Amino acid sequence: MNHQSDIFIDSQPIKLDCGKQLRYQLSYDTYGTLNPNKTNAILICHALTGDQYVASTNPVTQKSGWWANLVGPGLPIDTDKYFVICANVLGGCLGSTGPASQNPDTGKIYGLDFPVVTVFDMVRAQARLIDHFNIDRLFSVIGGSMGGMLVLEWAASYKSRILSAIPIATGSRHSSQNIAFHEVGRQAIMADPNWQSGNYHSLNTSPAKGLAVARMAAHITYMSDQSLQQKFGRNLQDRDSISFGFDADFQIESYLRHQGMSFVDRFDANSYLYLTRAMDYFDLAAKFDDSLMSAFIDTDIRFCIISFTSDWLFPPEESKLIAQALNRVAANVSYVEVNSPKGHDAFLLDEPEMFSAVSGFLTSTAQKYNICDKGENL
Amino acid sequence: MNHQSDIFIDSQPIKLDCGKQLRYQLSYDTYGTLNPNKTNAILICHALTGDQYVASTNPVTQKSGWWANLVGPGLPIDTDKYFVICANVLGGCLGSTGPASQNPDTGKIYGLDFPVVTVFDMVRAQARLIDHFNIDRLFSVIGGSMGGMLVLEWAASYKSRILSAIPIATGSRHSSQNIAFHEVGRQAIMADPNWQSGNYHSLNTSPAKGLAVARMAAHITYMSDQSLQQKFGRNLQDRDSISFGFDADFQIESYLRHQGMSFVDRFDANSYLYLTRAMDYFDLAAKFDDSLMSAFIDTDIRFCIISFTSDWLFPPEESKLIAQALNRVAANVSYVEVNSPKGHDAFLLDEPEMFSAVSGFLTSTAQKYNICDKGENL
Repeated sequence: MNHQSDIFIDSQPIKLDCGKQLRYQLSYDTYGTLNPNKTNAILICHALTGDQYVASTNPVTQKSGWWANLVGPGLPIDTDKYFVICANVLGGCLGSTGPASQNPDTGKIYGLDFPVVTVFDMVRAQARLIDHFNIDRLFSVIGGSMGGMLVLEWAASYKSRILSAIPIATGSRHSSQNIAFHEVGRQAIMADPNWQSGNYHSLNTSPAKGLAVARMAAHITYMSDQSLQQKFGRNLQDRDSISFGFDADFQIESYLRHQGMSFVDRFDANSYLYLTRAMDYFDLAAKFDDSLMSAFIDTDIRFCIISFTSDWLFPPEESKLIAQALNRVAANVSYVEVNSPKGHDAFLLDEPEMFSAVSGFLTSTAQKYNICDKGENL
Repeated sequence: MNHQSDIFIDSQPIKLDCGKQLRYQLSYDTYGTLNPNKTNAILICHALTGDQYVASTNPVTQKSGWWANLVGPGLPIDTDKYFVICANVLGGCLGSTGPASQNPDTGKIYGLDFPVVTVFDMVRAQARLIDHFNIDRLFSVIGGSMGGMLVLEWAASYKSRILSAIPIATGSRHSSQNIAFHEVGRQAIMADPNWQSGNYHSLNTSPAKGLAVARMAAHITYMSDQSLQQKFGRNLQDRDSISFGFDADFQIESYLRHQGMSFVDRFDANSYLYLTRAMDYFDLAAKFDDSLMSAFIDTDIRFCIISFTSDWLFPPEESKLIAQALNRVAANVSYVEVNSPKGHDAFLLDEPEMFSAVSGFLTSTAQKYNICDKGENL
């Protein structure tokens, strides 16, 4: 598979939703080959703590790509057919400009001086990257969770620039409960004295404990009650009986502590604040007089919306609201509710029903628009 | 209403599940009057952060009793008929012996030297308090959430000493997800440098930020997604538009921060560690060869089990497991699933269906056993 890592340094700043101008770069990976008439490009949008290493080894964790089971030669997102682009989002911490970047105006790390970015801002920057490739129209935009929000924003704000959209395990706005969980995570980070009002980089400290707690809380929301019970239940960790103490007696405790501790090695605490904030602020209908229908009016985009039955962070009801709005404007939409006990995380896991939905949808769309047919040089 | 606050200082230590002996006291309140043959006593067991002020003003918060709508003259738990006892649990921080108490062996505050207590230990201490009243048999034991665990433990371990039991919004064991949320709370407390390995009392510090984060995370689990959405939705707090910052833009954020901050004024952080641990350790069937049925075999107790449809912390399924086990041993059990959108917190709120279930169950049980009839002097 043809795989490249690169950095796009925009020569122009973008104007953000908050009103500020920002000079920025995006770190991105590509897989496969862009065809001559540039009709086979798929943009993949990663989730909150995801990255551009969708089908390649993450250089920090040395783990294989987070969608390596979905993206590659012969896989549902077939890199023998499609040219896949995945960029670290604006505000992220894996090479794209974010709060851990240097502020060109001061020479210091931004910290909380970094402007609060929105999902729309992330998409604006991605659109510039697509311009940079001279791609008029993306064959598809695909993403789960926060990535799904970006997909929806693309569909609403860049109607003519995408042919199809696959928002997975997401919603058109962050719910009260979701904001609540994010707020707990942010408060855990800010409660850590090593956070230092966001200036920890300059002061050579790290709010590792606070960030670990934030990750632990979030991680619970990524799994279903049932999957936690099946995977861990009340099983004890490396012991035959309870310790009558505060060690990690239970496997679930040990697992969560590990999740928290390993997260801090790969993620910037301020980025976590900014990206959770962007998700909280996301409310697609709000920009269209609170009418989700209006966000999609006159769209030619083909939609495939996927949700998971046991996902309680973005329950199927949230996806159905999107499908209903699309139906009301007579859009081309298919909705797949995947029966899975794995909770929100299902979109990252081996889910054959999701795989076949993505594969079937892309193939039929490609056939309809004569993308990647034999006449094309790939 | 006859209301008294008192302290029971046990002349004998109790032997705890962990093997240690503990000298202790229980701080308790009573409401109503014990009848001459001592057949009208109801023990109420409070929840994790509850207290003995079930129907009287909490002297710390100045708030009215947490079940003042359920317990009182003419109310479902009618203090004109019944003698209500509610004691702060062992390990608590409102007058009963806990980690914030002085260790008689050292003269210092216990901190983490306090032995880890279990739900059974809490019930053992309560049984001594009931002995102190010379009550052979309680008319009923009632409680929600952690209090419901104590009710179940009473029913399993002191079969002959209670006539009826009303476990509400609870389970026979803490689930993996529930342990996970508690572990996040504990890690938030322990991550606070002011926790000082539990010695904050001696060092005149307070892990207030960590405890507030713990409370915020827990509070989300007490409400349903639906009730959060209905009550707060994405409403903004004291502003017309988002601030593009990390203030509490949303009402739900402001609400959670308030919940966190006000909690630290009334609760001891170490007590929070110990009581959550007791709940995590609770697994009634485990003591009976993993057979919940065996826990209740040959019981004469009348049970009324109550759950709430939208409670995702202790979902109705958990209550049904208890009801099924009781049915299998031919126990006298009624199960009421209250239709409520309010989540776990419903057991503390104005829920007419719960009120009438409690009232009806107590009245019919009293009639059957000739408790509180006209012949009795109350």
